[in-house]
Amino acid sequence: MSGKHILALSGGVGGAKLAAGLAAVTSGDDLTIVVNTGDDFEHLGLTICPDMDSVTYALAGLNDNERGWGVENETWQAMAMLRALGEEGWFNLGDRDLAMHIARSWRLRAGETLSQVTARLTRELGIDHAVVPMSDDLVRTQVLTDAGWIDFQRWFVGNQCADKVFDVRFEGAQRARPAPEFRAALERDDLAAIVLCPSNPFLSVDPILSIPGVRDALAERQVPLIAVSPIIGGSAVKGPLAKMLAERGQVVNNLAIARHYQDHWGDLLDCLLIDHADEADVPVLQARGLTVAVTRTLMREAADRERLAKEVLAIAGI
Amino acid sequence: MSGKHILALSGGVGGAKLAAGLAAVTSGDDLTIVVNTGDDFEHLGLTICPDMDSVTYALAGLNDNERGWGVENETWQAMAMLRALGEEGWFNLGDRDLAMHIARSWRLRAGETLSQVTARLTRELGIDHAVVPMSDDLVRTQVLTDAGWIDFQRWFVGNQCADKVFDVRFEGAQRARPAPEFRAALERDDLAAIVLCPSNPFLSVDPILSIPGVRDALAERQVPLIAVSPIIGGSAVKGPLAKMLAERGQVVNNLAIARHYQDHWGDLLDCLLIDHADEADVPVLQARGLTVAVTRTLMREAADRERLAKEVLAIAGI
Repeated sequence: MSGKHILALSGGVGGAKLAAGLAAVTSGDDLTIVVNTGDDFEHLGLTICPDMDSVTYALAGLNDNERGWGVENETWQAMAMLRALGEEGWFNLGDRDLAMHIARSWRLRAGETLSQVTARLTRELGIDHAVVPMSDDLVRTQVLTDAGWIDFQRWFVGNQCADKVFDVRFEGAQRARPAPEFRAALERDDLAAIVLCPSNPFLSVDPILSIPGVRDALAERQVPLIAVSPIIGGSAVKGPLAKMLAERGQVVNNLAIARHYQDHWGDLLDCLLIDHADEADVPVLQARGLTVAVTRTLMREAADRERLAKEVLAIAGI
Repeated sequence: MSGKHILALSGGVGGAKLAAGLAAVTSGDDLTIVVNTGDDFEHLGLTICPDMDSVTYALAGLNDNERGWGVENETWQAMAMLRALGEEGWFNLGDRDLAMHIARSWRLRAGETLSQVTARLTRELGIDHAVVPMSDDLVRTQVLTDAGWIDFQRWFVGNQCADKVFDVRFEGAQRARPAPEFRAALERDDLAAIVLCPSNPFLSVDPILSIPGVRDALAERQVPLIAVSPIIGGSAVKGPLAKMLAERGQVVNNLAIARHYQDHWGDLLDCLLIDHADEADVPVLQARGLTVAVTRTLMREAADRERLAKEVLAIAGI
């Protein structure tokens, strides 16, 4: 394998950290980051792409590490005024973040694709690496709760994940096509590794794999597919993953992650990279035919992200 | 005349001050403020209505008195980020102001009329009086410069009024209808006075009068029509009025204002209220058949606005 191009699939915050790590240790042409857009939604006339923005802010060095989401040095003046104007206040829009939504929304409305808009905005922020939506077509993640099917952000932010989730679906996925740069990355001669960033399998990775052709294209490439587990110490670092597993009657561990990928997507993973804290999961993972690697997967600082990224590349033989 | 309803026509900042004064001295049902929408424009996917907002902020007590436009306690985080994202930066959008544009834009797109949106937003801000766009139909003021016809805000803000204006036109005015509440105010049995606020005749009042039927409806009502002059001491308090008059080869005084209304709109004004500083204009105004009243028209503080509003009502016999 002489190539060295990496295709990373990412969701929001956790995935974005590894994506930023990979970007820090590769040159611009050696990495394509494909981002989940199932969480995107329309709100107050704006197209909001939370995962795309998390990845963009992380790569631009603009992410707020303390809050864990959004832009650093953020203020909330527009949001306070929107509430005073009687507009829905359940989704918090920072003033700096709002600029991203405004720029994206008007350009989408003017006819640009999400790929084109994202390429433009990330370039303006000085990002050298390709940040690519999984699709330019509309895919919307919905969860089934006692209240019926509701849009992901309504549940995730509006409901704060309180309602139990019985099922997840990706509206539009069956008609969606991979974004052009995603397709191009899948076909690159120099593709050397595929990385599933430590994102929620049900909510962040499944939408990407649900796009017709994607799963098979990934499986057909004879390059290592390495998944970094979002589980650390029998829990999820952030987000509703642990709660969702528990609601499914599953123990929150790497076995649940591996089983999900194997049951739903077949023999896709070549290696699962897990945290030292979960070393006890190794035998059962190996028993399921998985190669397992163990390291420290928690990413607090830039140095953590870069070290983990280098370890992923080493596993892939890059 | 037993009625006491006042119909005020207003442009931006100067007009908004008198509108706020009138609101301060009348009950909610006794005042309809009709606002110029010719300066409105689409920018970054948002519908921006500068004069409507000036009036709204003034009535809600949110206007920034020091800067002279926009909202008090304003910040500019979104704007800085929009510029970082490579978006046009010539029109400064404050974070709090942006909330107004977002709320208005998405509701317009959802099918509400500008009248409906404005009624909703002003009510949310605690405004009891009717703030009404001159029309729910699109009217766009354009100015003719050496560069051809350009949209008003491009010239006013983008060009900072530098280019000489040879002509002004109101695109769409001939097909526009007065907004429903404007029409209703024109037909009210209890209408007692019509007030032209101290706004630029060419840019703020003419667009309103250009809507088919408006000029005649105003003239046919047998109630005093009182114009408060935007000229103080042979100059305009704010904005490009003085420059525009000079470019037309006219002396900047009340005669130019009176002549403009008489030449273009016939016998419409019953009384022109001017500032003490321009008392020398009185004889020539009277010679043109105008009733002239003289007072202090500069409005620095709320007390000035209310005193001037009361004087206008007194002239109207209310």
